[in-house]
Amino acid sequence: MRAEIISIGNEVVDGSVINTNASWLSEQLSSLGVQVCFHSAVPDDESLILDVLQRAQQRAQLILITGGLGPTVDDFTIEVAAKFFNKPLVMDSTSLKKIHDFFEKLGRKASSNQKKQALFPQGATVLANTVGTAPGIYYLFKEVHFAFFPGVPSEMKSMFTDEFLPILKQAPGRNHERQLKVLRCFGIPEGQMDHELRKEIKGRVGLLQTQLGFRVRFPYIDVRLYNYESDPKKAETQLESSAQVIRNHLKNYIISERDEFLPKIVGDLLISKNKTLACAESCTGGLIANLITDVPGASAYFIEGLVTYANQAKIDLLKVDPQIIEQQGAVSEPVALIMAQEVRRRAKSDFGIATTGIAGPSGGTQEKPVGTVYIAVVDEKQQWVKKFRFPFGRERFKQVVAATALDRLRRNLLSFSD
Amino acid sequence: MRAEIISIGNEVVDGSVINTNASWLSEQLSSLGVQVCFHSAVPDDESLILDVLQRAQQRAQLILITGGLGPTVDDFTIEVAAKFFNKPLVMDSTSLKKIHDFFEKLGRKASSNQKKQALFPQGATVLANTVGTAPGIYYLFKEVHFAFFPGVPSEMKSMFTDEFLPILKQAPGRNHERQLKVLRCFGIPEGQMDHELRKEIKGRVGLLQTQLGFRVRFPYIDVRLYNYESDPKKAETQLESSAQVIRNHLKNYIISERDEFLPKIVGDLLISKNKTLACAESCTGGLIANLITDVPGASAYFIEGLVTYANQAKIDLLKVDPQIIEQQGAVSEPVALIMAQEVRRRAKSDFGIATTGIAGPSGGTQEKPVGTVYIAVVDEKQQWVKKFRFPFGRERFKQVVAATALDRLRRNLLSFSD
Repeated sequence: MRAEIISIGNEVVDGSVINTNASWLSEQLSSLGVQVCFHSAVPDDESLILDVLQRAQQRAQLILITGGLGPTVDDFTIEVAAKFFNKPLVMDSTSLKKIHDFFEKLGRKASSNQKKQALFPQGATVLANTVGTAPGIYYLFKEVHFAFFPGVPSEMKSMFTDEFLPILKQAPGRNHERQLKVLRCFGIPEGQMDHELRKEIKGRVGLLQTQLGFRVRFPYIDVRLYNYESDPKKAETQLESSAQVIRNHLKNYIISERDEFLPKIVGDLLISKNKTLACAESCTGGLIANLITDVPGASAYFIEGLVTYANQAKIDLLKVDPQIIEQQGAVSEPVALIMAQEVRRRAKSDFGIATTGIAGPSGGTQEKPVGTVYIAVVDEKQQWVKKFRFPFGRERFKQVVAATALDRLRRNLLSFSD
Repeated sequence: MRAEIISIGNEVVDGSVINTNASWLSEQLSSLGVQVCFHSAVPDDESLILDVLQRAQQRAQLILITGGLGPTVDDFTIEVAAKFFNKPLVMDSTSLKKIHDFFEKLGRKASSNQKKQALFPQGATVLANTVGTAPGIYYLFKEVHFAFFPGVPSEMKSMFTDEFLPILKQAPGRNHERQLKVLRCFGIPEGQMDHELRKEIKGRVGLLQTQLGFRVRFPYIDVRLYNYESDPKKAETQLESSAQVIRNHLKNYIISERDEFLPKIVGDLLISKNKTLACAESCTGGLIANLITDVPGASAYFIEGLVTYANQAKIDLLKVDPQIIEQQGAVSEPVALIMAQEVRRRAKSDFGIATTGIAGPSGGTQEKPVGTVYIAVVDEKQQWVKKFRFPFGRERFKQVVAATALDRLRRNLLSFSD
């Protein structure tokens, strides 16, 4: 089964919004064993929409369309679809009642434009919208499956998953579903990835059926293994044997084989070992605390974070000796270490982590150029501190420093020696 | 002049990467007065690429193509282009020398695949790549302008701006360049935007020539006014008179008419008034400090941030009376106020801001459901504290709380009464 994605809307073609719908739908279809062969985006223009529907119908057996289902005059995708399928528009009483109920709750009456959202081509299956007001439709036309979704990503996603997926799963002609294994990595030295890794594992067991891909999610890299083997047990064996080759090669750089990032990984480790954390940040400016507290339930292990941006804050809050700052600079090994130790002591936490560096764009010197940073992670037994240089822009610098600190904490929690 | 964007690559159609190139290029072209009418994305497949080039040529006068210029066997866009233009591939000696020099520096020899990147359809103009190795090309074919760019966004962008823009600016048939005015807003109550605003300003002076659009950049909303008037002075007058209508309507909700967000706006105000800031965060978990320190030069006014996540941290660091926490809860007006006052006192800063709330998904009660938050902003004279309810997900909740706190600070700095 070959599929196409069509996105409708002036705001897509003029660049006002990034077309994330097309990539999200493609990813979903790929994982279900449906090959996506074409994306297109057209403005709110009837003849262009009709033209793109016609061409798609000649090439594909499944066509997903997003956008143009709303209540405004620009939204006429459903009318165009009715014309294309050569069917009259009929009122769906269930949808009409929902619209009436919605506006009644607001103490208002639905306008004629809003009622328009209950009109569908005769014979179409209505896809309910549980997030917004505009329903979608599914229609089988000349053996080609058509599904129309709203352009708002959250509405489109829930409609695809809850309403359309059960229909698609019953449609014949799909390939075997894609089996996917993701090994999420952090901190791999350049040159150990891509070509070298491909070469390294090319000749090994299982990889003849398994494909290898990479996806950067800065500062992380995902190694993706997938195949379309029909027997799920065989697929799992093949993926697992390929994954083992990669594990042997990348070892502790692999942080997870689930869809999670360092803040969640570290949080789960802290919970399972019943440990707590506090952090003292200078150059990361609160990013570490922010990442940690993005994880639901972080209050179980995160005590406090100090963003000691000014030198005086380092002196007042973290008892850093002003003389050390004067002699060695605020960006120095002893300052990082004292920050981590002192925040741990005052929060009475098991771990203390600290960062001090030069995020730029100004503030660099010959000896300590922009991108220089000291990171410290301490606990009852260990005092770890290390100098790095990350020559990125300010925001990426903060991201990679935060992730490096959290990764060191992960390695400590897992008792890795390096 | 009508334009189309074509993106080539399996990784685009299978959803592995989001097609940001198409929206970036569309936005550039729109601003230059070129109307973009179609986007398409195709896999690395010769016949599909030829087909899409042919169709595009029938519809548009300018066609921008991205992807497939690299050194691997999957990269054959240039060969397909030569076939399409019916021209032989010829070696460009300047490009070949650059490739040789590049690999010589690495102490290696260029492979035949790498040398392939110096082959171009006879008569094409080479677009140099100053960021990576693969050059692009420009070719005028049957009065249609074709330009081929690499798929890597940073390479594509610099090639478009430095190499292609000068060519495009000399091409005839463009409309007048788009004049754009953006009014960035925060905190507007729902219902004051879109339809109401459109109605409100529809009949007014200047808006006949001026178009109105909205773009959400959560938690901000941009009101965008633009026109394609030929006389720049007249355009400016029209835009300005339309903008004045919007200013009268949205007043203090407009935070800037430049491309900047609250952290930068507040930072500039603090610098100009020679004031300093400290913050104490509970539910925002470091996000406010993180946003503030994303702005280069924040060390001039940001003293410290305390992320007092645990109650004990609020008691130890901010002298919150445990009895108040017990009686009124950590999420309460007095706690927010004490946090802001105390962080200001200890940092000796001019302003203190504080947040305490329930980000969820758990922790809510009947009386204080998830999404409840108290925000405080204090200075020498004023003690402002207010309860809000933001029923969003955890991360969006943090974002809107942080922005609300910064917006209150902005209003104080500008001496707004509300």
